[in-house]
Amino acid sequence: MTNQDSFLLSFEGIEGSGKSTQIQLLTQKLEASNYTVEYFREPGGTSFGEKLRSTILESTTPINPLAEANLFAASRAQLLSEKVLPLLSKKNHIVILDRYLDSSIAYQGMARGLGIETILDLHEHPPLNTRPICTFYLQIDIETSMQRQQNRGNEKDYFEKENINFYQNLIDGYELASTRFPERIQIINGKSDQNKIHANILSALKEKTGIEL
Amino acid sequence: MTNQDSFLLSFEGIEGSGKSTQIQLLTQKLEASNYTVEYFREPGGTSFGEKLRSTILESTTPINPLAEANLFAASRAQLLSEKVLPLLSKKNHIVILDRYLDSSIAYQGMARGLGIETILDLHEHPPLNTRPICTFYLQIDIETSMQRQQNRGNEKDYFEKENINFYQNLIDGYELASTRFPERIQIINGKSDQNKIHANILSALKEKTGIEL
Repeated sequence: MTNQDSFLLSFEGIEGSGKSTQIQLLTQKLEASNYTVEYFREPGGTSFGEKLRSTILESTTPINPLAEANLFAASRAQLLSEKVLPLLSKKNHIVILDRYLDSSIAYQGMARGLGIETILDLHEHPPLNTRPICTFYLQIDIETSMQRQQNRGNEKDYFEKENINFYQNLIDGYELASTRFPERIQIINGKSDQNKIHANILSALKEKTGIEL
Repeated sequence: MTNQDSFLLSFEGIEGSGKSTQIQLLTQKLEASNYTVEYFREPGGTSFGEKLRSTILESTTPINPLAEANLFAASRAQLLSEKVLPLLSKKNHIVILDRYLDSSIAYQGMARGLGIETILDLHEHPPLNTRPICTFYLQIDIETSMQRQQNRGNEKDYFEKENINFYQNLIDGYELASTRFPERIQIINGKSDQNKIHANILSALKEKTGIEL
């Protein structure tokens, strides 16, 4: 049972779209308004999920797309039942997810070619049928993503090693999800400056939830 | 593409039903008839799957039933695409699986309460829609299972720690699967002596596949 004053938000977008920065800014703003904010990244967020996270991100051999989709679903089901749903049953709790359903649509559904319906089928039963009240899709182009990833200079994981074509498919996947679920997904221009993006997120939040921060 | 002379077999049954012994006896018989036999256990059989195997079997916290089902499906999809299907495309190869779809029906579908349809939904898309040409369900009662497990005296894993009720649900699950898929699942009395069971398996194999060993 979700408490009326508590809700779930998700952030989506390709690498370098600024999810972490914006989650941080929004969290500060929400906490200043006396909300308790919990943040989880996917895959992971639980001891079970973190083990699955390293199994996929450290893989050096190709993983079957449907195996990949099921691994993400396993991590997600555990995160929802162990953490997210208990938190949402409390008062004034906001849970923010860094990647969720739409990343599965983009990565496994579109870029790995399973199709959006296969991914939605995997999310039909509880607890995987849980949906955020609002999803912020930080939209950037491939060039911006590549540029920002180079600036970071981290070692690349299983997904970051993919080529330009893969990234284009991811973008197509996020766009498709946005078209399919316009009532939930808010497209935010991820190329604006940080404060402008933050302001746009706040106004989208107000529009979707009525909450004014 | 499956080679005409190659096929997939699975063994099912609760702990102590004698799967390992019978797989060994059948393998010897098949190899003596010039088949190449490969054996895999579930979850596992690939480097990816073995990591998932330890993640679930060594878990000390309760795992959400749908997370559990997705984890098994992930391991299975990888096993099929990386090992089983390539082997079945060769000539005279027989792949034997120690647990497969019907264990998911029994464990997650019945004992964890997800229902048989949720499990079948997870196995609709390739490669998870692969079915054995014949499944041997080694049928024993709870008392026999408990007795044989005590005699082994191993440390108990995540599933073996469950109570009598769980085992009864597993048996109900295997029975339900056998009723639902009678053309594929052959019920074998697992309480007979080893050689008698082996002979029954050979005659069931002949009946289902036309192969006489």
